[in-house]
Amino acid sequence: MQKILVANRGEIALRVMRSAREMGIKTVAVFSEADRTMPFVQYADEAVCIGPAPSSQSYLLGEKIIEVAKATGADAIHPGYGFLSENAGFAAAVAAAGLIFIGPPARAIEVMGSKLAAKQAAQAFGVPMVPGTETPLRSLEEAREVVKKTGFPILIKASAGGGGKGMRVVNTESELAEQIALAKSEAKSAFGDDAVFIEKYVTAPRHIEIQVLGDQHGNYVYLFERECSIQRRHQKLIEEAPSSCLTPAIRAAMGQCALDVARACNYYGAGTVEFLVDEQLNFYFLEMNTRLQVEHPVTELITGLDLVKEQIRVARGERLTFTQADLKISGHAIELRVCAEDPANNFLPDTGRLETYVRPQGYGVRVDDGYEEGMDIPIYYDPMIAKLIAWGQNRDEARERLVRAIEEYQVKGITTTLPFGAWALQHPAFVSGQFDTGFIGKYFTPAALDAPDDTAARAAAILAVQIWQQQAGGPAPAPAVNQQASNWIKRRELR
Amino acid sequence: MQKILVANRGEIALRVMRSAREMGIKTVAVFSEADRTMPFVQYADEAVCIGPAPSSQSYLLGEKIIEVAKATGADAIHPGYGFLSENAGFAAAVAAAGLIFIGPPARAIEVMGSKLAAKQAAQAFGVPMVPGTETPLRSLEEAREVVKKTGFPILIKASAGGGGKGMRVVNTESELAEQIALAKSEAKSAFGDDAVFIEKYVTAPRHIEIQVLGDQHGNYVYLFERECSIQRRHQKLIEEAPSSCLTPAIRAAMGQCALDVARACNYYGAGTVEFLVDEQLNFYFLEMNTRLQVEHPVTELITGLDLVKEQIRVARGERLTFTQADLKISGHAIELRVCAEDPANNFLPDTGRLETYVRPQGYGVRVDDGYEEGMDIPIYYDPMIAKLIAWGQNRDEARERLVRAIEEYQVKGITTTLPFGAWALQHPAFVSGQFDTGFIGKYFTPAALDAPDDTAARAAAILAVQIWQQQAGGPAPAPAVNQQASNWIKRRELR
Repeated sequence: MQKILVANRGEIALRVMRSAREMGIKTVAVFSEADRTMPFVQYADEAVCIGPAPSSQSYLLGEKIIEVAKATGADAIHPGYGFLSENAGFAAAVAAAGLIFIGPPARAIEVMGSKLAAKQAAQAFGVPMVPGTETPLRSLEEAREVVKKTGFPILIKASAGGGGKGMRVVNTESELAEQIALAKSEAKSAFGDDAVFIEKYVTAPRHIEIQVLGDQHGNYVYLFERECSIQRRHQKLIEEAPSSCLTPAIRAAMGQCALDVARACNYYGAGTVEFLVDEQLNFYFLEMNTRLQVEHPVTELITGLDLVKEQIRVARGERLTFTQADLKISGHAIELRVCAEDPANNFLPDTGRLETYVRPQGYGVRVDDGYEEGMDIPIYYDPMIAKLIAWGQNRDEARERLVRAIEEYQVKGITTTLPFGAWALQHPAFVSGQFDTGFIGKYFTPAALDAPDDTAARAAAILAVQIWQQQAGGPAPAPAVNQQASNWIKRRELR
Repeated sequence: MQKILVANRGEIALRVMRSAREMGIKTVAVFSEADRTMPFVQYADEAVCIGPAPSSQSYLLGEKIIEVAKATGADAIHPGYGFLSENAGFAAAVAAAGLIFIGPPARAIEVMGSKLAAKQAAQAFGVPMVPGTETPLRSLEEAREVVKKTGFPILIKASAGGGGKGMRVVNTESELAEQIALAKSEAKSAFGDDAVFIEKYVTAPRHIEIQVLGDQHGNYVYLFERECSIQRRHQKLIEEAPSSCLTPAIRAAMGQCALDVARACNYYGAGTVEFLVDEQLNFYFLEMNTRLQVEHPVTELITGLDLVKEQIRVARGERLTFTQADLKISGHAIELRVCAEDPANNFLPDTGRLETYVRPQGYGVRVDDGYEEGMDIPIYYDPMIAKLIAWGQNRDEARERLVRAIEEYQVKGITTTLPFGAWALQHPAFVSGQFDTGFIGKYFTPAALDAPDDTAARAAAILAVQIWQQQAGGPAPAPAVNQQASNWIKRRELR
C-alpha cells in the first residue's frame, strides 16, 4: 500500500493521515468547497476538491471519489466514520475498481446494516438478545402476543433505523396501536422502509460496546469495552474504557459474544458490537457498527494499539501480530466530545467562528480535532469540533486529568459542550460510576453550569499579595497579579 | 498540602502546576520581569513578580521566594530543575521556614552535590566506579601513578563541576601536566574550587541513567532507565526509555546499584542515578541528580506514573503505593529537546520571536512547553522552547511517531533543533540503536539538514491531478491543489 485516499473530513481525516504518515504511506484528501482551508486538506500529500458543501454533492459521491483515487494513484480508500463508511455498495465498488477498501467486506456491512438480519445472524451463535420480535411486525395482534411475554414497557424500532430515528417507547397497552403506526410512518419517511420490530424496553440500561478486530485469515481479538452511557438524543457525549461496572467474567463473556457476532458475518478489520446492559449486568446484543467509531481513542489509550494502523495492516492482508492473551487493560481513558452545541439550550447545534481556540496540553491529554483558531464551523456537517481524551492510571486520575484539560481548553465564539463535560465528570453519579443512559435526563439542568462564585475569595487573595509586595519593597502592585485576575475572569467566561 | 509555590519558570513550572491542579492543589507562580506574559504565570492561581530578568535577581533569590510562599499561604515549594533545585541551603531554609520542600532532604542534596563525596558514599555499597582517584588530586606525581593503573586516555573532572565545565580529556603522558593545570584553573573560575580528580576515559560510552523513587519510610523503587547518549557539548538532546542496548539482567543490576546509591544518602523523592556504559555493557556510577530531570516524561510514558504527583505524595509523607514487582515497561518513548539553537552553526543559541508556533497533535504525542505564538524567547534563560515526546508500542513506532510530530511542528522566527531531530531519528546508527555519546561528533554535519529535492515529483503529481480534474469536468485547476503546493513549500522551509 503506497497511497491512501481518505474519503472523509475533519478530525477523523487528520487522524487517519497521521497514522498513514507514520507508516510511510502517502495520503490524498478529498474535500468539499466548504472545507478548502481545513487542516486535513493541508496535511494531505495531495488534495482534490470534489464538489459543493452538501455531502450529497461531495463526500457521498462514491463514484467520483473512486475516480479521484485512480487519478491520484491511490491504491486504497479509508472511509473514516459516517458518510460512505457503512455503505456496502461503496465498499464493493472500491474493490471492483481494484482498490483496497480499508474496512470490512461489503457483505458484512450489508448484513449488519439491517438490524433484523444482524439479529438473525447473531442468534445462530446464541448471542443474547433483548426479548422481542425477530421479524418485522405484521400486525397489532402479533404485537399484543409479544408483549404478553416481554411485558411493558417496550420499544418499537425501525429495522433500517439508527440514531434514535423511528424509535418509540410504549408504556401501556392503550397506546400500543397509535405508537406502532407513528413509528412505521416515521421509519417510512426517514429510511423509505416502514418495517418495525418490538423489543423489551430495558430500564436504566447502560450502553457498553466491545471493540473487535479480525484479520482476513480468521483470527479475532476483542479489545475490551467502551462505556458510552452518557448520551443526549441517543447520541454519545462521554465515553470511557474500561466501564466502571463490568466484572472480569462479564467482560470476557461479552467479548466472546462480540467475537461470535463478528464470526457470524465473516468480519474482518475493526468493528464494534454494541450491547445494552441492565442493572443486574445482563447484556443484550444491540447492533454491530462496521467501521471505526468516533470513540476509538479510549480503546487505543488503554491497549496501546493504533487502531488505524491495525485497520491498514488487516486491509493489506497481514495477520494479527498478537492474540487475546497478549492484550490487557492499562489504566483508564475518558473522552469528551467537544461539540458546537448549547447544553443550556437542549444541546442544539451552534455555529460561528472559533475566535479563540487554544488546546490543552500536558501528560495524558490527547486532542483529536480538525479546526484551527479563526475558522468557521460549517453548518453542513456534524457539530463535533474535537475529541478531548484523557488517560490516567485509574479512573479517578483520568477523570481529574480530563477536568483539568477542560479548564485549560479555551474556546470563544462558539458555545460548546466543554462546560457540560466539566459538570458531568464531577457529578457524584459519574464519580461513583453509578449511572445509566438516563444520566442527562435525570441530573442535568442548564442551571448546573452556573459557576460557583469564588470572586470574593480570589479578590482577597490578590489584594493580600499586593499589600505584601508593597510592604516587602517589591515591585508596586504587580501588573501580573492584575493580569492574573483577568485571566481568572477569562476562565469564568469559558464556563 | 493546599497550595504549592513553584520556584521555576517555563515548561517545568507549567508541568508541575498541571499535576497540582489535577490533585486539587492550588499553585503560586513567581516570575521575573522578563516572564510577565508567560503561560505559567497565567496558569497559576496566583502569581508574584520577584525581580528583574537575571536569575541572580529573581529565580535564585531563595529567601525572597520563601517570603512569597508565606505571604500567599503556600505550604510547599516545588523547585523544578535548575535554579534552586539542587541547592541544599535552600532546601534546608524551606524546611526551617515550616514549609515542605518537594524534593529530597537537604543532606542528600549536599552529599550528591559533591562528586567526590557522592563517590565515597556510593562506594561503601560496592557500586562500580570508573577507575581513577577517589580524593582530589594532590600532585602531578599522584596523577602519573594513577595513570599507570588506568592507562590513557583519562578524563580530568572538577569535583564541584557539572555540564562539562572543568572537564578535559588527556590522551598522552606529554599533555598531562598542562591539562591538569588548565582544568584546575577552569574549575576555580567556574565553581570557586580548584579540586579535580582523574577518571579512566571510557571510549564510545553510552550515557544511561536510572530513575529512582523513594518515600520517607525507607521504601524504594527504580523506574527503569533512560538512554541519553545523543548529546552536544555534554548536554542531552534526545532521550529515550528503555535503552536499546540493555539486557533485562543488566537493567536489574543497574537498578539495584541505583537504589544502593539512593540508600547511601538516605534519599527520598524522585532522583536520577547516572551511569556510563561501555561497549561491553560494563556500567560505572557517574553522579546522582537530586531533582526531577528534564527528560522525566519518557519514564512517565513507559510506566504510566506521574512523577510530579509521586514527588508531591512523598513530600506529604505518604508511602509508595506500589513495589518493584508492580512496575513494568510499557512500550517505548523518545524525547527531543526543541531548543532555540542553530544545529548548522555548532548548536549556538538563537533568540527572537516565535512568529509561527503550531504544535503537533494526535495519538502518542506529548508537548511540554512554556511559550505561545508571538512570544519572544528571552536571552536570560535556557534556550529550550519545548520537549517533544512520542510514545509507541515499540521503539520503531515511537521513532516514526516522533518524526511525524517533528514534521507537523511549525516554528518560524527562530532556528531550532527540530530539523536536527528529524535527521538524527532517521540516521541508520540511531535506527539500529548502535550509537554512543559521540553520535553527533561522528555523524552530524550541517549539510545533513539539506532536504532531499523532491520538487519535480511533487509538481508532476499536482499537474496530473489538475489535468484529471479538467478532463473529468470537475472544478478548474483547484486552488486547493495550489495551496497544497504552497503547503509543501512551507514544510520545506521548516527544515
